Amino acid sequence: MSTGRFIALEGGEGSGKSTQARLLADALAARGIDAVLTREPGGTPGAEAIRTLLLDPPGEGWGAQAEALLFAAARSDHVARLIRPALAAGRWVVCDRFVDSSRAYQGGAGGVGDDAVRSLHTIGSDSLRPDLTLLIEVSPEVAASRVTARDGDAADAIGGRDAAYHARVAAAFRAFAADDPTFAAIDGDGSPDEVHTRVLEALAPLLTQASA
Amino acid sequence: MSTGRFIALEGGEGSGKSTQARLLADALAARGIDAVLTREPGGTPGAEAIRTLLLDPPGEGWGAQAEALLFAAARSDHVARLIRPALAAGRWVVCDRFVDSSRAYQGGAGGVGDDAVRSLHTIGSDSLRPDLTLLIEVSPEVAASRVTARDGDAADAIGGRDAAYHARVAAAFRAFAADDPTFAAIDGDGSPDEVHTRVLEALAPLLTQASA
Repeated sequence: MSTGRFIALEGGEGSGKSTQARLLADALAARGIDAVLTREPGGTPGAEAIRTLLLDPPGEGWGAQAEALLFAAARSDHVARLIRPALAAGRWVVCDRFVDSSRAYQGGAGGVGDDAVRSLHTIGSDSLRPDLTLLIEVSPEVAASRVTARDGDAADAIGGRDAAYHARVAAAFRAFAADDPTFAAIDGDGSPDEVHTRVLEALAPLLTQASA
Repeated sequence: MSTGRFIALEGGEGSGKSTQARLLADALAARGIDAVLTREPGGTPGAEAIRTLLLDPPGEGWGAQAEALLFAAARSDHVARLIRPALAAGRWVVCDRFVDSSRAYQGGAGGVGDDAVRSLHTIGSDSLRPDLTLLIEVSPEVAASRVTARDGDAADAIGGRDAAYHARVAAAFRAFAADDPTFAAIDGDGSPDEVHTRVLEALAPLLTQASA
């Protein structure tokens, strides 16, 4: 049995990546590919418990370092208990956010630094990388209108940070995609179906290999 | 105002270090020294929430890597929100377990490795070290009888691990103490008052400096 493929979707708040992750998992299933749809932080009972601590922190809220460590802990559990076993069984994994979110949010915008976040990923998850990372990019105006429509005034501890923080996140994501051939930058403006068509185009090389 | 002193107590399950930490904090107060008694994992609202996840894990239990990351996250919060502010205000801090427990348990006994645990401490807490670490050592027989008296059959996810794991913890602690002049190894056999007298002897150099 062949090893499955690991696809991550990345982007800022309101980029539409969660919607695109669902549409992609459905499209893979329609092609007869056994795909697991999962998300970070979360995906396993342990990681979902950490997610609750991250998005609704006790006390004064987490410092950037503690936050980076908690994300890495959740990811370690998710990789060990769900992602690696699924890939080893020949399944595809479609993951809404992965380590590049930690690099962009805590590493870049939060100031922890990229080397530190990469070290945490090496210690926690033996540096597992997706086969393909789809970066869904939208203009700040589109992102803001989608977030308002979705969350109203109920943003979580991370989504609710200021515009300067989210601008640093977006800049970090762009820099990763420019440097790494396993990234595909996707224009996220337009309807979900329009963006989904672009996602499938970016995925075409992997789908061709899978059906060969 | 001078900077306070940071004293950690370390040892395996049933070593009596929590009792000795309390007696030490009381003895410092009796000498007019403003001392904070705290513990790991825990000591702040965020770190206490992580403690609950560590000692009563959701799902299948944590792997050694996720466990090390969670301890480092709790410590990062504890250091940033409680320990460093207390020391900066001239208070002493008496802490029941600190980073050397992570080195002995997850690093040594759990197989994560000492370099990895030290890296996590650098990222999370800028490598803060105690001024003095008191390692309370007891024979395995004494430790076992104290743990049985305290916990019965209700051991937590870490204390309840097998004897070989706890033997590796004890060996790791001994190796740290042999290598590092900021450790004092204390014979933990005998009554709490007998052990407390030994703790105060080990602390005498710091107490002399404080009253000078």
